[in-house]
Amino acid sequence: MRLRIDLAYDGGGFHGWAAQPLLRTVQGELEAALATVLRSSPLSTVCAGRTDTGVHARGQVVHVDVAEGALGPAAGRAEGSPEDAVARRLNGVLPADLRVRRVGLAAAGFDARFSPLWRRYAYRICDGVPDPLTRDHVLAWPRTLDVDAMNDASARLLGLHDFASFCRRREGATTVRTLLELGWARQGDLVTGTVRADAFCHHMVRSLVGCLVAVAEGRRPAGWPAQVLAAAVRDPAVTVLPPHGLTLEEVGYPPDDELAGRAEQSRTRRGPA
Amino acid sequence: MRLRIDLAYDGGGFHGWAAQPLLRTVQGELEAALATVLRSSPLSTVCAGRTDTGVHARGQVVHVDVAEGALGPAAGRAEGSPEDAVARRLNGVLPADLRVRRVGLAAAGFDARFSPLWRRYAYRICDGVPDPLTRDHVLAWPRTLDVDAMNDASARLLGLHDFASFCRRREGATTVRTLLELGWARQGDLVTGTVRADAFCHHMVRSLVGCLVAVAEGRRPAGWPAQVLAAAVRDPAVTVLPPHGLTLEEVGYPPDDELAGRAEQSRTRRGPA
Repeated sequence: MRLRIDLAYDGGGFHGWAAQPLLRTVQGELEAALATVLRSSPLSTVCAGRTDTGVHARGQVVHVDVAEGALGPAAGRAEGSPEDAVARRLNGVLPADLRVRRVGLAAAGFDARFSPLWRRYAYRICDGVPDPLTRDHVLAWPRTLDVDAMNDASARLLGLHDFASFCRRREGATTVRTLLELGWARQGDLVTGTVRADAFCHHMVRSLVGCLVAVAEGRRPAGWPAQVLAAAVRDPAVTVLPPHGLTLEEVGYPPDDELAGRAEQSRTRRGPA
Repeated sequence: MRLRIDLAYDGGGFHGWAAQPLLRTVQGELEAALATVLRSSPLSTVCAGRTDTGVHARGQVVHVDVAEGALGPAAGRAEGSPEDAVARRLNGVLPADLRVRRVGLAAAGFDARFSPLWRRYAYRICDGVPDPLTRDHVLAWPRTLDVDAMNDASARLLGLHDFASFCRRREGATTVRTLLELGWARQGDLVTGTVRADAFCHHMVRSLVGCLVAVAEGRRPAGWPAQVLAAAVRDPAVTVLPPHGLTLEEVGYPPDDELAGRAEQSRTRRGPA
């Protein structure tokens, strides 16, 4: 029986998603909490977006396979479904910087990592005096950003490309991705970028944003990020921006009857895990 | 020469506004930074809202009197006015949880504490799964709140009243205040209260909100907060809610030519400091 778990976390206190010995990670905390709440031996979770150290999430999606009956019988009054009860018990055990938003039974063929149609991230930058209340998830930038120039440069990056220039290369894995959305909006001195793609390679969003900030400051012309992209090799002039401005906001899945087909397609295209 | 300083802070790391020996306070940090930046002996600051331990601010206003010429000559290129340069230098010295939004020369008669027409606070409550990214300034509430009932009860508290039921009494000081605005709005599971009054007594907002949450949960009828108010004595059934949901958002001042008159009027009415 497969469960889908929707998660939110403040990445500041975690060494990223992936479980590592001796380090506090999201996967490590979640798997420990699952074992406690389900009174089970260790369980393996799989996520939609393997966030790096310091990257936040409001819409992380995870799956985990559990034994039939592992959730126990539906509990009494006001407890709702067994899945709701598990979500509540997980939140009782988990630390405050990691919250379960929802637990549900996964539809047949659902795979948190391979079924998504897209992932959506936000990168937040303040180019005025930083708000102390949001400083942990908004990057403070000391110079004014030209949002129109960022949008101009961003539009030239959309579509199917080899994003090798913006990624840490990994043996045998493709860096071809489809960038579906990349746009910037200003509210006062908060500049928010929305980035949506079928999937992302390692450091891709933070490198893309690093490139666009150079344009936004007038250090580079609006065509430069597209040139970097076309070169398809890492350019030392591209800065990887800090992780704390980045939040995984949402993962989009197809209708239930397309979950398995989509997963098969992604596995084939993206190469070995 | 009087300066007006606009401040924002994350109250979580401070023992409130007021300087106290051995404790980290907003006033203590600010006065130390001012002495450093202006190379002066200790300076005394006065604020619009003496926030308690754990209460945040986005729109705190402070005045400080400095010697003529204390700001030094206008600096070079891109530095702007001497006041802008002081703001920048203060932010270079201050910790990240306390930011100066603006420094300006105060108009004649300006008094941060006595000139305001009103103070506006927000109290933020999440009645769903808390967002880990905002958990330090939003109160997590485990039960669903009825916002319509909160607004119904709130409307009955507006106007000029003796708010003694909601305040810690202080010898010789009045607890008569004019509540100008008190309303609640929901965005998803975030419920935000806006509270505006000419001035507030100690614990007033947090007690008012504690009263209204009892209504929002259905534990008390919508008329109860007004009954508590009318009794004009502290009611042990009123809970003072935690400080971290509360943020001083804005202080409203009259036009420059009314600053001194307003200050005189407030000083007379409110009694000894």
